[in-house]
Amino acid sequence: MEPKWQILAFFMVLTVSTGVSFVAGVYFQQREAKKRLNKIIEKDPYAYYVSPKLYEVFGFFEDEEQSSHRMAQIMKYGFPGLDDLRLYSDFVLSYDRRNRVAHWVCEHLEVDQLRTNVVSRRHRTYQPDMRVPSNFRSELTDYRKSGFDRGHLAAAGNHHLEQEHCQDTFFLTNVAPQIGEGFNRGAWRNLETYVRNLVHRFGSVYVCTGPLYKPHQKDGGKLGVEYEIIGLNMVAVPTHFFKVIMVESSLPMGKPYMEGYVLPNAAIPKDLPLRSFLCDIREIEHYAGLKFFDGLRRSAIFGSNYPSESQVFRDFG
Amino acid sequence: MEPKWQILAFFMVLTVSTGVSFVAGVYFQQREAKKRLNKIIEKDPYAYYVSPKLYEVFGFFEDEEQSSHRMAQIMKYGFPGLDDLRLYSDFVLSYDRRNRVAHWVCEHLEVDQLRTNVVSRRHRTYQPDMRVPSNFRSELTDYRKSGFDRGHLAAAGNHHLEQEHCQDTFFLTNVAPQIGEGFNRGAWRNLETYVRNLVHRFGSVYVCTGPLYKPHQKDGGKLGVEYEIIGLNMVAVPTHFFKVIMVESSLPMGKPYMEGYVLPNAAIPKDLPLRSFLCDIREIEHYAGLKFFDGLRRSAIFGSNYPSESQVFRDFG
Repeated sequence: MEPKWQILAFFMVLTVSTGVSFVAGVYFQQREAKKRLNKIIEKDPYAYYVSPKLYEVFGFFEDEEQSSHRMAQIMKYGFPGLDDLRLYSDFVLSYDRRNRVAHWVCEHLEVDQLRTNVVSRRHRTYQPDMRVPSNFRSELTDYRKSGFDRGHLAAAGNHHLEQEHCQDTFFLTNVAPQIGEGFNRGAWRNLETYVRNLVHRFGSVYVCTGPLYKPHQKDGGKLGVEYEIIGLNMVAVPTHFFKVIMVESSLPMGKPYMEGYVLPNAAIPKDLPLRSFLCDIREIEHYAGLKFFDGLRRSAIFGSNYPSESQVFRDFG
Repeated sequence: MEPKWQILAFFMVLTVSTGVSFVAGVYFQQREAKKRLNKIIEKDPYAYYVSPKLYEVFGFFEDEEQSSHRMAQIMKYGFPGLDDLRLYSDFVLSYDRRNRVAHWVCEHLEVDQLRTNVVSRRHRTYQPDMRVPSNFRSELTDYRKSGFDRGHLAAAGNHHLEQEHCQDTFFLTNVAPQIGEGFNRGAWRNLETYVRNLVHRFGSVYVCTGPLYKPHQKDGGKLGVEYEIIGLNMVAVPTHFFKVIMVESSLPMGKPYMEGYVLPNAAIPKDLPLRSFLCDIREIEHYAGLKFFDGLRRSAIFGSNYPSESQVFRDFG
């Protein structure tokens, strides 16, 4: 080869290889940064919340990895609210530091998960969550002699697959003051059992549970909010509790179905059927200041008011 | 040169240049991604909140750019809480969707900012914030005939530098039902004036303002929370309002100073001095479920209880 062509070939090889390695550098940095980002997103609910925006930051190579960590599964349809988000081993919780009770707890239940591997009962003891600053923490002493049960929001019976799952439901962040006789040991327990029945029947169920502080008409005709406070740490006693349930249908063309229940924190007569507590989900949202399963088109799922019979019963036969 | 050496030189140049351009690619990708990230962070409070973690994602080149956008200035010492964060042109707000009133509003005030460029009074009209979903929005009709003033949280008088700044304070998200005579047009206005005096005197002041729903002893001796609700959208009437003020000292060795005020939402007698409403900041935090100026070491700033005389008055002479 003539020297002229040699030099030309040399520069061509040089240009191509520097170009290729520049692109490789871009790709390498993006891949590494995404890996680190994914690690953060798995553990930080706020990072997970902004993650759709964050992925746009890496605009050069499109590789839509589906994130498959536990939080992404539980929060698949969006966060009901964003106050003090906390990730536990099998549920996600938003803590109300003003009332010392959770805003909401989200669970995703599947049939496999309801199997019981938990043997030891040692890990079934209530305990304060030390990750909550002391100024906002509820303690065991707050419930003692208060006359109220320590009622679970995410039911312990839904999380028996692993010791840690079960144990986590006993943190006081997942607990609220509930009337014992006729509520925690009555209608509320029936509602929890009903949810597990849905899981056995339809396979995949999302549940969001929380307290309500419902306004009521006062003597002068004005509306007011009124609720009791217990213990030195001033834990609020909710007037009502809600559960919003979303059933991912296992039918081939099945649509997801939602229903919401609101139960007063009071002794509920045994003969009242659960379905009499069915409630418009938008009403629960209005009172709670939350938005449930935002990722789903609401209009396709239910009307503004519930029929007297549960949609799940009617539509899933 | 001999062909052998030519080939060797060729490969050396090739190796070095591909190496350099690989690193250049890494650097280019990182710089571009950071630029995009910074744009997101300027506008999204949640992205800003997780940004210290996000910067760790880009671990290859250290270049500590100090972010200098308005939100970073206002939120320099951390977020009091994280519920429904909203960025306005000159203040940051956390909205309580359950009570249809803000949790808190944060402002950063400097002397330059208090100058008045706003001429038109056209932009000083109260309006609902349409960015809040209708289910959680307060409307003008809620205040009409309620007997309550539409009281500012971030004072309009603090934001006169630009039309938009002033206008933004008139969104109903920045407004709460206040007793007019003796409060909104009395002690509360005096407190706002006092804050502006501090700004004129010390140059840089951070203010966090919000409502409280303080528990009180009920007839049976039990503690309870009780507050009124107004309008069709059920806007809560706070029992108290707080302001937590942090003065960045302009003295050479000066430490920052904080004070907190809690005023009952009631007609306050004219002869009561403002200083009689000084309050332990940790007490405000306990009732509000918030944490103020978390970025500062609290112990260095004040004790657990306030002396009867304001620390700002004593220490700044």
